[in-house]
Amino acid sequence: MRDAYRDQLDSIRDDLVMMARLVREAVSEGTAALLEGDALRAESVISADAEIDALRIKLEEHSFELLSLQNPVAGDLRMLVASLRMVSEFERMGDLAVHIAKIARLRVPDVAVPDKVVPMIARMAAVAEVMIGKVEHIIANSDVAAAVELEEADQEMDKLRRNSFRELLGADWTHGVEPAVDIALLGRYYERIADHAVSIARRVVFLVTGEHPQYA
Amino acid sequence: MRDAYRDQLDSIRDDLVMMARLVREAVSEGTAALLEGDALRAESVISADAEIDALRIKLEEHSFELLSLQNPVAGDLRMLVASLRMVSEFERMGDLAVHIAKIARLRVPDVAVPDKVVPMIARMAAVAEVMIGKVEHIIANSDVAAAVELEEADQEMDKLRRNSFRELLGADWTHGVEPAVDIALLGRYYERIADHAVSIARRVVFLVTGEHPQYA
Repeated sequence: MRDAYRDQLDSIRDDLVMMARLVREAVSEGTAALLEGDALRAESVISADAEIDALRIKLEEHSFELLSLQNPVAGDLRMLVASLRMVSEFERMGDLAVHIAKIARLRVPDVAVPDKVVPMIARMAAVAEVMIGKVEHIIANSDVAAAVELEEADQEMDKLRRNSFRELLGADWTHGVEPAVDIALLGRYYERIADHAVSIARRVVFLVTGEHPQYA
Repeated sequence: MRDAYRDQLDSIRDDLVMMARLVREAVSEGTAALLEGDALRAESVISADAEIDALRIKLEEHSFELLSLQNPVAGDLRMLVASLRMVSEFERMGDLAVHIAKIARLRVPDVAVPDKVVPMIARMAAVAEVMIGKVEHIIANSDVAAAVELEEADQEMDKLRRNSFRELLGADWTHGVEPAVDIALLGRYYERIADHAVSIARRVVFLVTGEHPQYA
């Protein structure tokens, strides 16, 4: 009985890692759709979100079942409640990837992002993907040391976002209002994805160490 | 013993209502700061967010304590887990009010919102405040019927957001990039506040009825 219970806890962890992987793919594909103006790819990100939502429901039901039936003690209780909260965050990250794909779709056959801003957006996406990859690793291995790297990556994301505002509000900006609005919102979406990654990593650190992480 | 436990559950409910009220005030004050270009008022919204965060921590610790010590049965267990998730949503809503205040502060002594867009932003804020007020009522009274009104208000919010894009991407837009970017982000913040209000109301409906709400 006890073993079956541990297996179930492990399976929740595996599903969280899977959810992270699906979100990472959504961000990656949404960004590709955006930078290539690829409507089909954008559509497939939008429809694949149902898979993330289905996994959310599965994880919620499973976590709840264990909470109800097993009267878990402190550590497992914390883990199950944390997983319910992480699930909400992953779902939001998936939605944000959908928002990116929708901006791509809205501008097809054009590309929403002017050429000179492509490297900045591509970098934001790359940082976000690396961060989600680290979250997968942190959850799978309870590797709390890796959470520090996530905070560093988040600082790069903040800096990229500040740079993007400098670019689109600067005197050199010749692309007008529409791309500026798109880029401001895209920056917001990538930034929020990164914030959620940090938040999830902090939850794992708290689960493993019992301490809320403090970084200088 | 049993009565003390019920009192504690009631006190969690009261604190959730209080958290909603603080968030509503933050949205109201943040909007006033924005539309009047009032730096002091913006600062006070930004610093008052610590109060929301403190209430979040209090509620999390209290909910967790009850989860750990009382082995709550199905209904109470759901209520406590839901309250932990609602707390996260209220905290985010507070953060979004801070973002609104920060846009106000950034543009002082100017007003970020051009005159002709003021009514639209004021209406978004009013809809958001009404929605948060309804959430207070729904939580305080388990009044699930009122949740339908929230969905209607959310539809108005979506419509306002679409109109705002039409305005700032239209040929008549003469205010340039910076106010357009501000308004796109402000619209996003109010829309997210509204989304969280709907999400919280749905959680209450599910707690009370055991059914996930479906609205036509």
